[in-house]
Amino acid sequence: MKRVFNFSAGPAMLPEEVLKEAASEMLDYQGSGMSVMEMSHRSKEFVAIYENAEKLVREVMNVPDNYKVLFLQGGASTQFAMIPANLMKKGGKVDVINTGAWTKKAVKEIGFFGNANVVASSEDDTFTYIPKDVKLSGDADYVYLASNNTIYGTRYVNFPKTGNVPLVADMSSNIMSEPVNVSDFGLIFAGAQKNLGPAGVTLVIVREDLVGNHIDGTPTMLQYKTHVDASSMFNTPPTYAIYVLGKVLNWIKSKGGIQGVYENNLKKANLLYNFLDESKMFKGTAKKEDRSLMNVPFVTGDADLDAKFIKEATAQDLTTLKGHRSVGGMRASIYNAMPYEGVEKLVNFMKEFEKANS
Amino acid sequence: MKRVFNFSAGPAMLPEEVLKEAASEMLDYQGSGMSVMEMSHRSKEFVAIYENAEKLVREVMNVPDNYKVLFLQGGASTQFAMIPANLMKKGGKVDVINTGAWTKKAVKEIGFFGNANVVASSEDDTFTYIPKDVKLSGDADYVYLASNNTIYGTRYVNFPKTGNVPLVADMSSNIMSEPVNVSDFGLIFAGAQKNLGPAGVTLVIVREDLVGNHIDGTPTMLQYKTHVDASSMFNTPPTYAIYVLGKVLNWIKSKGGIQGVYENNLKKANLLYNFLDESKMFKGTAKKEDRSLMNVPFVTGDADLDAKFIKEATAQDLTTLKGHRSVGGMRASIYNAMPYEGVEKLVNFMKEFEKANS
Repeated sequence: MKRVFNFSAGPAMLPEEVLKEAASEMLDYQGSGMSVMEMSHRSKEFVAIYENAEKLVREVMNVPDNYKVLFLQGGASTQFAMIPANLMKKGGKVDVINTGAWTKKAVKEIGFFGNANVVASSEDDTFTYIPKDVKLSGDADYVYLASNNTIYGTRYVNFPKTGNVPLVADMSSNIMSEPVNVSDFGLIFAGAQKNLGPAGVTLVIVREDLVGNHIDGTPTMLQYKTHVDASSMFNTPPTYAIYVLGKVLNWIKSKGGIQGVYENNLKKANLLYNFLDESKMFKGTAKKEDRSLMNVPFVTGDADLDAKFIKEATAQDLTTLKGHRSVGGMRASIYNAMPYEGVEKLVNFMKEFEKANS
Repeated sequence: MKRVFNFSAGPAMLPEEVLKEAASEMLDYQGSGMSVMEMSHRSKEFVAIYENAEKLVREVMNVPDNYKVLFLQGGASTQFAMIPANLMKKGGKVDVINTGAWTKKAVKEIGFFGNANVVASSEDDTFTYIPKDVKLSGDADYVYLASNNTIYGTRYVNFPKTGNVPLVADMSSNIMSEPVNVSDFGLIFAGAQKNLGPAGVTLVIVREDLVGNHIDGTPTMLQYKTHVDASSMFNTPPTYAIYVLGKVLNWIKSKGGIQGVYENNLKKANLLYNFLDESKMFKGTAKKEDRSLMNVPFVTGDADLDAKFIKEATAQDLTTLKGHRSVGGMRASIYNAMPYEGVEKLVNFMKEFEKANS
């Protein structure tokens, strides 16, 4: 069996322990005589899997009791529309901090329901930083941001204070990678396929009082109330993805919870960033104070050299390092499940490559 | 390892060969060094998996070239809203044939966009039959029906002729169980979790000319055009579910395609229905001429006896036989992946039970 260090921006590496458990239970989950894929979502076995996953989200993220935890389908892209449909008044206003492609997509969907008021943007410098000291309108239905920007490799170290206006965060690419205070947010969401599990399930954590006020005419599946009332079982949920997500949460717990994985993430990111800061060949593209712990874009400045690097790295089983087309160069995504050894191997290879090609 | 015969209405049994392959590839898909769950959806490995799944849908169902094949999220419940948003004129009209709980749910969502015109219903007799000789309005945006009714155990043997008005069918519970002529339909959809694979992916087959005419203000993820233009990769698709679905389609092909599984389904259903027709204890609840090949509800007429039967059957590893609460009694769902031996074991047990309890 071969295993590579996969630096994909998502779907991304999963803990090997999780995959081994899933494989061993594939034909017979704990003596039930069925795969989890084959189980009715109403069966006592699956309901226990579901309830355990919810309990673990609450425990690992320390979710207050007045927040609901939902497991939905459709990815962050569906949330881009679902959030305004539920949290906005029709024709209302949302203050958006634009930090890249994903907040832009959210802006477009808000526009179907009301006014996306971009209060700050880092587009002037190719999204290489997070806008600071943002002046909010004060009368928005909510404030919207992305806590981490997968493409540009930036992240919020401190979130803006929004007072009584709910703060909504797309945490798809750094959820559970470092501590956050859930009660600072009105709604947090994340596609699972980076830090939580396989693609096909979206975690939504929403404050109770924000549920049930959807705009008239919102289809049933786009109302949070539908899913809250039915504990995410209004229709068949993505059962297998929820099962794997539960295993990933158990793994996070076993690593010392979010604090434990955060310390490991810092070690991994520091190793790579320290090398980038010293290297004469490789340069990080994001501003130092806003650097992501999850996604590290870097370039040599020479497209041919970038291509040579990616090819040779792949031959060393350091895979999926090609940068996003809008930044170019390389991107190393080092999510929770990327072992320290993977980053170490990458940095060692970068050093060798630099020596051999200078 | 234990394996049971699982008569769940869905999620439901999968072919054992499919589960074995998935387990063996869990940590390393064909030498890639990754699980399919860990792969970027833009990677050449996953794109090949995706393209193969689409090719197999086209081949197995003989899909004409002027139809698009999509793999979406959100289940049939999302399609209930997505179809009117895309195929209806705002404030338009849909002719609906109401054959149970699932068509009723579709009626509700159509109501968000226009008029759901119920042209026929079998509610007068607890949905035990399929309305015949339905008079259509002739000027509807489309005609809507469910080809098989999971709860009530009925199915269309012949579909109504709708002329130039597109016919839309929810085939969630009997897709690929018997031959259909795709070109008779404007749109076919099915949640995967009964005949196609795990929960979390919805197959949509839509005629090209019906794409792109969505109602103004439809969010991007609810526009078929979004997914057609991006070959279902507008955002991260449910990659693992698509991978398993591809394996199920390969399995269908290996069984002689739809004609092969249909012949096996007829054998299985006949075995069970012939016994029900003869039994003095167990009675099928659906009208004979409209019986489903997939879902077989039956009752003893005595709730205590039903409970005893379910309990003793479970002890024999014949599981999930409890009927839907709206019908009561028992329901045996015998989808494509239920082996003939499973139905045989069930019928033999029913005979023994009848003898022991008469």
